[in-house]
Amino acid sequence: MRLLVIGGVAAGMSAAARARRLDPALEITVLESGPSVSHGACGLPYFVEGLVPSTADLIAYTPEYFARERNIQVRTGTRAERIEHARRQVLVSGGETVRYDKLVVATGARAAFPIPRGHNVFTLNTPSEAENLRAYLVNRKPQRGVVIGAGYMGLEAAEALRTHGVSVRILDDCGCVLGRHDDFLLKAVRRHLERFGVSLELNRRVAELSELAADVIVVAAGLMPNVELAREAGIEIGRTGAIRVDERLETNLPGVFAAGDCAETNHIVTGRPVWIPLGTTANKMGRVAGANAAGARERFPGVAGTSIVRVCGLGIASTGLCVADARANGFDPASARIEARDRAGYFHARRITVELVADRRSRRLLGATILGEGDSPLRINAVAAALTGRMTVEDFAQLDFAYAPPYAPVWDPLLVAAQQLMHSLAT
Amino acid sequence: MRLLVIGGVAAGMSAAARARRLDPALEITVLESGPSVSHGACGLPYFVEGLVPSTADLIAYTPEYFARERNIQVRTGTRAERIEHARRQVLVSGGETVRYDKLVVATGARAAFPIPRGHNVFTLNTPSEAENLRAYLVNRKPQRGVVIGAGYMGLEAAEALRTHGVSVRILDDCGCVLGRHDDFLLKAVRRHLERFGVSLELNRRVAELSELAADVIVVAAGLMPNVELAREAGIEIGRTGAIRVDERLETNLPGVFAAGDCAETNHIVTGRPVWIPLGTTANKMGRVAGANAAGARERFPGVAGTSIVRVCGLGIASTGLCVADARANGFDPASARIEARDRAGYFHARRITVELVADRRSRRLLGATILGEGDSPLRINAVAAALTGRMTVEDFAQLDFAYAPPYAPVWDPLLVAAQQLMHSLAT
Repeated sequence: MRLLVIGGVAAGMSAAARARRLDPALEITVLESGPSVSHGACGLPYFVEGLVPSTADLIAYTPEYFARERNIQVRTGTRAERIEHARRQVLVSGGETVRYDKLVVATGARAAFPIPRGHNVFTLNTPSEAENLRAYLVNRKPQRGVVIGAGYMGLEAAEALRTHGVSVRILDDCGCVLGRHDDFLLKAVRRHLERFGVSLELNRRVAELSELAADVIVVAAGLMPNVELAREAGIEIGRTGAIRVDERLETNLPGVFAAGDCAETNHIVTGRPVWIPLGTTANKMGRVAGANAAGARERFPGVAGTSIVRVCGLGIASTGLCVADARANGFDPASARIEARDRAGYFHARRITVELVADRRSRRLLGATILGEGDSPLRINAVAAALTGRMTVEDFAQLDFAYAPPYAPVWDPLLVAAQQLMHSLAT
Repeated sequence: MRLLVIGGVAAGMSAAARARRLDPALEITVLESGPSVSHGACGLPYFVEGLVPSTADLIAYTPEYFARERNIQVRTGTRAERIEHARRQVLVSGGETVRYDKLVVATGARAAFPIPRGHNVFTLNTPSEAENLRAYLVNRKPQRGVVIGAGYMGLEAAEALRTHGVSVRILDDCGCVLGRHDDFLLKAVRRHLERFGVSLELNRRVAELSELAADVIVVAAGLMPNVELAREAGIEIGRTGAIRVDERLETNLPGVFAAGDCAETNHIVTGRPVWIPLGTTANKMGRVAGANAAGARERFPGVAGTSIVRVCGLGIASTGLCVADARANGFDPASARIEARDRAGYFHARRITVELVADRRSRRLLGATILGEGDSPLRINAVAAALTGRMTVEDFAQLDFAYAPPYAPVWDPLLVAAQQLMHSLAT
């Protein structure tokens, strides 16, 4: 049996590694168009910032490691050109064909529009791109920076530029930050960024990068899934524009699985397909796709859309639906927002802001946003678990959370927010 | 309608405040035998340590505050001597009777055995006791200390003594720490304490305090619920020795509720009554008892037994059942323990140890123990939510936890432990 994986980053390498663990006899090949595998794109802004000495520190494993330790053949610099499923083979760059019995498509995502070239224009998707940007910042000492895109990568890139003494404007053609249509979140992030000399200019479509008065431009705008290869092979694309998969992450072609940034997944709150490309989801999907490609029967339940990002010391975490998303998905949302201390005052308490959203009809908890310093926003994980458990606000308000003065107030901020939300639901 | 509350600490004051919020017309009286209300006993070790300047900083509200702002009459220094339920009245110290329509019993807990007197023997249950201990440490500069009891209070007291330069031995007559029969936990805590010059001597029954070579002795040994008043009034006591209540926290006497350290509650994992006296539970039970006494119909679902404590920089959190408890409750437990980093290495990652316990038959997650520095043990809250949601290990392993390098690794330690536990269950 031959397993072929197209794409050697998070989802692809997770799939290959899991399949190997379940089946020592499987012949496993990974095709990767880039020069390395398994790199941590999430760490690239921190390399640019200077926290990480070398991009090599972000590469978990080398192709040699996979060959030696896992008996997985990784072919870097090898692009899959065409999937010929009828013949169970993939045509690769150079004209060779590679045969398979099971296929995992993990082709990832790319910038949604072509990036104009320019000596001062950078992207931040691969280690070499990050190296180019850092070298430019160190050697050329640019003064005026523009970041295109107010998503996770954009905000992290802005912080990296600030660390190098660059003034930063963040431009985005939509009206929100971090992909959430949440006015409160927008205001809080804008206020915080301005304190660090970063301006946020939304609803701002940039026709020509050359019109920008900037010494350095980082394009971190919206992604789109790489689905062309799949579509041409007759693999069904979902309404989100990403590859449609079932619970086992199998596509409409039997024996062909898809995972990671190229694939849709199910939103556990709405039950609807979503496309939320994140590294952690790619790893999880890869594991399940790899297991099923190796003959297991595992299920990927979907995502809650949980995310966290730190910008200039402020942590921003969210899970589930914000009010606007809840309404768009047919719920009748109510929300409550509280500010609180995250522990006893004498343990260097920090302010934390918690917003919870619930459905008025079912009283079901739908989502949360948490802002705070230190690790306080990591409380979002307890909300993610509660969303998966389909808890009502009342259930959530009674959760037995840990209390001790160095860690939390007697009433954890999550519970205070839940009590507040119960009041909102009662009115 | 008259609501009478016996006990003015966490549960009692929460009950009174909640009842007031729901019914502005209720006549509410609280009887408190001590000199103050609503004090944070949990903060007393930190006052002794010197982190908190004055015990007044630990008192959230004064009786005057409750009278003025909440229209709640608090009678400090007033002991309830007898509940005469047939007449709906309580006899108090001095011979007066106080009438009620609804009663909340929140009489708390006390040391399980009489504390021998001695100029160098201290307890840590009230602000004045803490003040006495701190004054003694500051003025007399004792060298050799003994703490009786290896529970939360005992460990926190040991740290407070160390901060004052006292050598510390912790003695306990049982064979475990923090009330959990978990050898791994015991070893880890012992090793950590020894690094800070604190020795742990278990299975060590102390017949006479005077036999101890100690300049200062803190008795923080096991608690027992104050149930005598209730028992004499015909209120049923459960098998745990605490007051038996139903889901609404009503006792066998109609209109008489019990909450906090004097009452049992339901364990959400075993479904059995337990007595786990903790401040946060007392507050939550108080809220529900107060609401129901005011005519609402609220349910207290029980506890997961979640707790967290910090000792000399090490956080120890647990929820649900450890292996021994699981076995004692009829489960067939398997466990897995992993060590991991709590975030990307370049963000000052700390080691975290996670142990998860599940039932082999149902694959249900039963409990967790987490050890780590910083806020990392607060991850226990996500496990508490999962226990309440009765998740299997497989459900838990797929939870959509937040990932970003400053906060967590791609695979959160909780998920790594869950994967490890799935392997254990498969064998």
